[in-house]
Amino acid sequence: MKKLPFDSTDNYSHDAAAQRRDFVAQNADTNLQHLGSYSFDPAVLRGNIENFAGVAQVPIGFAGPLLVNGEHAQGAFYVPMATTEGTLVASYNRGMKLTRLAGGITCTVVNDAMQRAPVFVFENARYARQFGQWIDANFDRIKAIAEQTTRSGKLRDIEQHAVGKLLWLRFNFTTGDAAGQNMVTKATHSACYWMLEAGIEGLEHFAMAGNLDTDKKHSHLNTLHGRGKKVIAEVVVPKQILQDVMHVSAEALFKQRQLSNMGAFLANSSNNGSHSANGLTAMFIATGQDVANIAESAAALTYSEVTPSGDYYFSITIPSLIVATHGGGTGLPTQRECLEMMDCFGTGKVRKLAEIMAAVVLCGELSLASAIVANEWVSSHEQYGRNR
Amino acid sequence: MKKLPFDSTDNYSHDAAAQRRDFVAQNADTNLQHLGSYSFDPAVLRGNIENFAGVAQVPIGFAGPLLVNGEHAQGAFYVPMATTEGTLVASYNRGMKLTRLAGGITCTVVNDAMQRAPVFVFENARYARQFGQWIDANFDRIKAIAEQTTRSGKLRDIEQHAVGKLLWLRFNFTTGDAAGQNMVTKATHSACYWMLEAGIEGLEHFAMAGNLDTDKKHSHLNTLHGRGKKVIAEVVVPKQILQDVMHVSAEALFKQRQLSNMGAFLANSSNNGSHSANGLTAMFIATGQDVANIAESAAALTYSEVTPSGDYYFSITIPSLIVATHGGGTGLPTQRECLEMMDCFGTGKVRKLAEIMAAVVLCGELSLASAIVANEWVSSHEQYGRNR
Amino acid sequence: MKKLPFDSTDNYSHDAAAQRRDFVAQNADTNLQHLGSYSFDPAVLRGNIENFAGVAQVPIGFAGPLLVNGEHAQGAFYVPMATTEGTLVASYNRGMKLTRLAGGITCTVVNDAMQRAPVFVFENARYARQFGQWIDANFDRIKAIAEQTTRSGKLRDIEQHAVGKLLWLRFNFTTGDAAGQNMVTKATHSACYWMLEAGIEGLEHFAMAGNLDTDKKHSHLNTLHGRGKKVIAEVVVPKQILQDVMHVSAEALFKQRQLSNMGAFLANSSNNGSHSANGLTAMFIATGQDVANIAESAAALTYSEVTPSGDYYFSITIPSLIVATHGGGTGLPTQRECLEMMDCFGTGKVRKLAEIMAAVVLCGELSLASAIVANEWVSSHEQYGRNR
Amino acid sequence: MKKLPFDSTDNYSHDAAAQRRDFVAQNADTNLQHLGSYSFDPAVLRGNIENFAGVAQVPIGFAGPLLVNGEHAQGAFYVPMATTEGTLVASYNRGMKLTRLAGGITCTVVNDAMQRAPVFVFENARYARQFGQWIDANFDRIKAIAEQTTRSGKLRDIEQHAVGKLLWLRFNFTTGDAAGQNMVTKATHSACYWMLEAGIEGLEHFAMAGNLDTDKKHSHLNTLHGRGKKVIAEVVVPKQILQDVMHVSAEALFKQRQLSNMGAFLANSSNNGSHSANGLTAMFIATGQDVANIAESAAALTYSEVTPSGDYYFSITIPSLIVATHGGGTGLPTQRECLEMMDCFGTGKVRKLAEIMAAVVLCGELSLASAIVANEWVSSHEQYGRNR
Repeated sequence: MKKLPFDSTDNYSHDAAAQRRDFVAQNADTNLQHLGSYSFDPAVLRGNIENFAGVAQVPIGFAGPLLVNGEHAQGAFYVPMATTEGTLVASYNRGMKLTRLAGGITCTVVNDAMQRAPVFVFENARYARQFGQWIDANFDRIKAIAEQTTRSGKLRDIEQHAVGKLLWLRFNFTTGDAAGQNMVTKATHSACYWMLEAGIEGLEHFAMAGNLDTDKKHSHLNTLHGRGKKVIAEVVVPKQILQDVMHVSAEALFKQRQLSNMGAFLANSSNNGSHSANGLTAMFIATGQDVANIAESAAALTYSEVTPSGDYYFSITIPSLIVATHGGGTGLPTQRECLEMMDCFGTGKVRKLAEIMAAVVLCGELSLASAIVANEWVSSHEQYGRNR
Repeated sequence: MKKLPFDSTDNYSHDAAAQRRDFVAQNADTNLQHLGSYSFDPAVLRGNIENFAGVAQVPIGFAGPLLVNGEHAQGAFYVPMATTEGTLVASYNRGMKLTRLAGGITCTVVNDAMQRAPVFVFENARYARQFGQWIDANFDRIKAIAEQTTRSGKLRDIEQHAVGKLLWLRFNFTTGDAAGQNMVTKATHSACYWMLEAGIEGLEHFAMAGNLDTDKKHSHLNTLHGRGKKVIAEVVVPKQILQDVMHVSAEALFKQRQLSNMGAFLANSSNNGSHSANGLTAMFIATGQDVANIAESAAALTYSEVTPSGDYYFSITIPSLIVATHGGGTGLPTQRECLEMMDCFGTGKVRKLAEIMAAVVLCGELSLASAIVANEWVSSHEQYGRNR
Repeated sequence: MKKLPFDSTDNYSHDAAAQRRDFVAQNADTNLQHLGSYSFDPAVLRGNIENFAGVAQVPIGFAGPLLVNGEHAQGAFYVPMATTEGTLVASYNRGMKLTRLAGGITCTVVNDAMQRAPVFVFENARYARQFGQWIDANFDRIKAIAEQTTRSGKLRDIEQHAVGKLLWLRFNFTTGDAAGQNMVTKATHSACYWMLEAGIEGLEHFAMAGNLDTDKKHSHLNTLHGRGKKVIAEVVVPKQILQDVMHVSAEALFKQRQLSNMGAFLANSSNNGSHSANGLTAMFIATGQDVANIAESAAALTYSEVTPSGDYYFSITIPSLIVATHGGGTGLPTQRECLEMMDCFGTGKVRKLAEIMAAVVLCGELSLASAIVANEWVSSHEQYGRNR
Repeated sequence: MKKLPFDSTDNYSHDAAAQRRDFVAQNADTNLQHLGSYSFDPAVLRGNIENFAGVAQVPIGFAGPLLVNGEHAQGAFYVPMATTEGTLVASYNRGMKLTRLAGGITCTVVNDAMQRAPVFVFENARYARQFGQWIDANFDRIKAIAEQTTRSGKLRDIEQHAVGKLLWLRFNFTTGDAAGQNMVTKATHSACYWMLEAGIEGLEHFAMAGNLDTDKKHSHLNTLHGRGKKVIAEVVVPKQILQDVMHVSAEALFKQRQLSNMGAFLANSSNNGSHSANGLTAMFIATGQDVANIAESAAALTYSEVTPSGDYYFSITIPSLIVATHGGGTGLPTQRECLEMMDCFGTGKVRKLAEIMAAVVLCGELSLASAIVANEWVSSHEQYGRNR
């Protein structure tokens, strides 16, 4: 087995990338020309990737205009969706038309925090409880220490979770316009080592992580307590518009919802809606989010009603939407362009982006549910899809 | 609000894409030049996207060689990982070094099926049960009907799930080298309409979907019954190698695992491991998978032991890995190249790719866990990361 | 610390019980006279308890008549409910009146099996898979071995669940009129030791249990696959009767159900209904069931509809109802009387009892939901309750 | 169908009970003599049951002494266990011997609250959020109103859970020595109606309950936030004692725990331990608890370690132990005696009882796990059991 050339992570250049491609192409007797087609100086990638060799070109379709009545996002937006799944853009686009005609989607951010949850192992549960009481009593000092490591991170509160001799502290930070996972790790680390150095009575062991954040995977804890933004998108679609655009009634959608609610409960699913992951993933890829957070962000709670006048109230609540408009991949060339086309790049924009994403998700929910109810689901994939 | 030009989904050309970009750029007073930098004829995208306007350029780093002792994947592989998260490629690469020195990763596919789960609503539970008995008795005929719609899809079995007057049928198909969601939808649709046309006693209502597949979201049902491939990756790392490469002992990793197991159980998480979503997402984007399936594929089960000689047995079981080497986005230019560099493009390759992905995930688990245990986690993000 | 006298478990006599009471009473300076008031010869308790010292006198109230349209239970039943919670009997009784006027409750048993799930640990996942294939190929022989240990237990099938190098086999038995936990343990033990003696390639370790049964605790696996009987109870209550008896409309109950469904999903609850544990526990105590199985049997799935004519379809599905009419405590004096008053004692009666229990649960669901909706909940507890 | 005589719930007399028994006995052509054997005046049952007809005589065995090093329970206790399952008392008794020799069980109460969770439905999510902010700002007034209805209930805090236009408020009360379900219902009702009368902007609908308490069923919310007492029991068993009493090593128990942890995670179980429901149910019946709360109280978290010297640290955490020493059935004749034999009757005793119960559970866990590991499980049921 040969080692990759230029394994150094400090080597961000066209040449280094080409040499990596050549090496692998030769090794596999194949051709990697498209990978090498990118439009920027690899130097911009420092901090985003190691062993850079080229780019995935993921096709982007535009959908919209999406009409949002948010507190941060207000007005009409064209939305970039990066996907290779036929029908997806068309389906979301259809939902945007519907909700546009209905007067737009109301979005509300109701929670906002990023977590790191170290675990402390004591001699017994009493020491753990005593430490927990100390934490409560000394929150202000801990907060001050933690916040020294970051400009934008603010420690909101510390949850405590006790099991036997173990005590998890779940630090909740607001993180400005960054998703903030690294920021909160560093701040939590700093606070914990300050405590560790001061000495903790009865402590046997400490670990910076113990799966209670929870990071890069769904957990019911995240659904209940949130991770990232908790955003709610709502709409009331008049029955006539529903009929005209979707060829369904509110009653029929509501009946389908009953089946989907029951199925999700029976399956013990993270989401009683349909496919929020589709819209979110397409936007995450386009806008430079950490796409692996789809694992958490795909959880959702759907609640709907038929109004007395026969219209359809529909809502989607995303409890753990992890999103940034600053840091991570948001500043890379195509990613930044995608944020800018929604005026969502940089500081002060993250809740706006969260609102737009929630609105997009809602559009996809209504579109797919309608297609199932109207029995247009299979035929639309026949029309747009590839997997035949 | 202005409508997007060329909303027709049949318009796959450089011009059409440019006009969409220009329209949106003008509308938002911004610039979308990088989006327009792609290296292929948009005509290849028919069936993959609508309203095509450009591409996301997602940086790819190469990791490897990864040594796999699979039944389908055998030998050393260089792995393309598309991500914007600093440290990720370096961390997986470190795990690949470790497992290479340990003699490679054993991979085993133990389950393989794709689902569609229509729901039948009856007058009462007795009619539902009677229909279920009819399904069991007529499986061969149903199978024949379903398989008429597809060359590669084979109906394996039909699960039944009853709640009150509702009966879900969960059709399990093998789908060759495609992920198969559309294939199984079409086949299930065909089988159901054959039954519906023949008449089903006591039936009140039918819906093609009711959240029991479950598609584009985590469910415990998927963890138990699988969706896509269920793959297990295992390794035994000798203690000396663990110490040399990772600066940790098997005992220390195992102790950390106890905390992570407890935390995952307490959080009611879909995954008691660390971050399988990171490696899978990076490979999904690179190889043209349906990235939204990370919602399901991120679930995992980790089991480890310290062997009598102090080495570390570590395994990761991915119950719902949804992956394809044919169809969907796998044939697009950069995506195909990424598959080809692992000799995983086209027919007969899907289990090979599944094995490689599981092996990649395992590498990331060992690397991150070691970093946490060795307290190198924060410092490595300092070195490679951006989110400061 | 003094040891209890007559620790021998073979000592079932009035004298031995009295001596135990006297010893403890003296030790605690208290009086245990009521404990000693029982109406049978302690010799009947052999096999039911050790260190017998007396009885708990749990008050029983009668409710009914309950009108059941089951396949096994047909007609009107008076139901014994053992409880100390004021309002409980009255509330269930009210539900029985309602459903009686509505024409009775339809009950259907749709699944029936008791489990034991040993776990086999192999050198690696491949050996585990190979063993699984052997199990499938040799099911008939395994079945024959297992059934040698029992008259009434029949091995229905063996589920396989693989994680890393572990393979759980979940044996599903029908168990006649007994709950069957011990019966299936013995049969499974016998089958496993036959395999172990024959030699299993690559096996490292074996354990008779590993929490996949799952016994004496809720699990989602039990909800999906069942444990004991899966029973569905259904009713359609005409709107006028609902109004007359409960002072609510179908629409109001259905609206409340929407909130309860959402709440149960959000809480990740084992039951989207209200309080099935109340009715089941009261009947379990009265009829000599293993009351600890409430942990499993309390899971339930509620589905309801408003019919086109404004009546209320309501159903409760109990996936893991563990119940017996033979063995365990069913033959003890008061317990047997309680079974006999429903003609449910002895062989051939267990599905009848399961149907009655499901019907009772349904009555309690409708009664409590109606009380909440009609805002009569607090006042009824004021009237009947004690906890002020 | 004939109506039961004396349906009035105010009729608590020997005669009324006898008439009910006679009526049912005649109706079913059976005999209910044992039911009528009870040793108290039925008048004591007012507030505990309606339509009283007799008692279930549930056999009680004594186990112990149990050595507890609690903060409230200190010393040796003889424990009453009401059950009809052979082996149960003997098994717990064995665990008590083991832990007695090990120096006793340390118990710690770490959380204490009882819940009621009304749900408020608004026009949209913004009104819901605004109401939530009002709740936070007016907590002291709400607390004052709620506490007017009760002497011992104190409002600790109010959780908020938002989904779409719905907002659940989860009121957490401490409830003195009562379990407190009715007390908190009344207090919450009072607080809510005070708010409702004052007027809540944008409110469409209100319901006193919506499955987020969660009452009489397991929920992961209860595991995370607690319901009733959260109690931790811990012990370190020296290896020699483990070997002498249980014929197992700490290493073997720990290995079995790995399998049980994995199985519980795979099954998505409410409890990674073995059978806490057994010990709790037996004590609940004996001591007049609301036995239906086993649905919630059976949840548990087990964490164990092998110490450097080869001893076994074992802990069980019960997050939702619902228990009382006052109110409900605690004052009935046999029930009170059972509390008194542990000096746990009346005010100021509830945490003591909670500690004893947790210690009992721990004993049963060690005993059953040891039996499985030592392969004595089947044979012990052969010796003591009945279900053959």
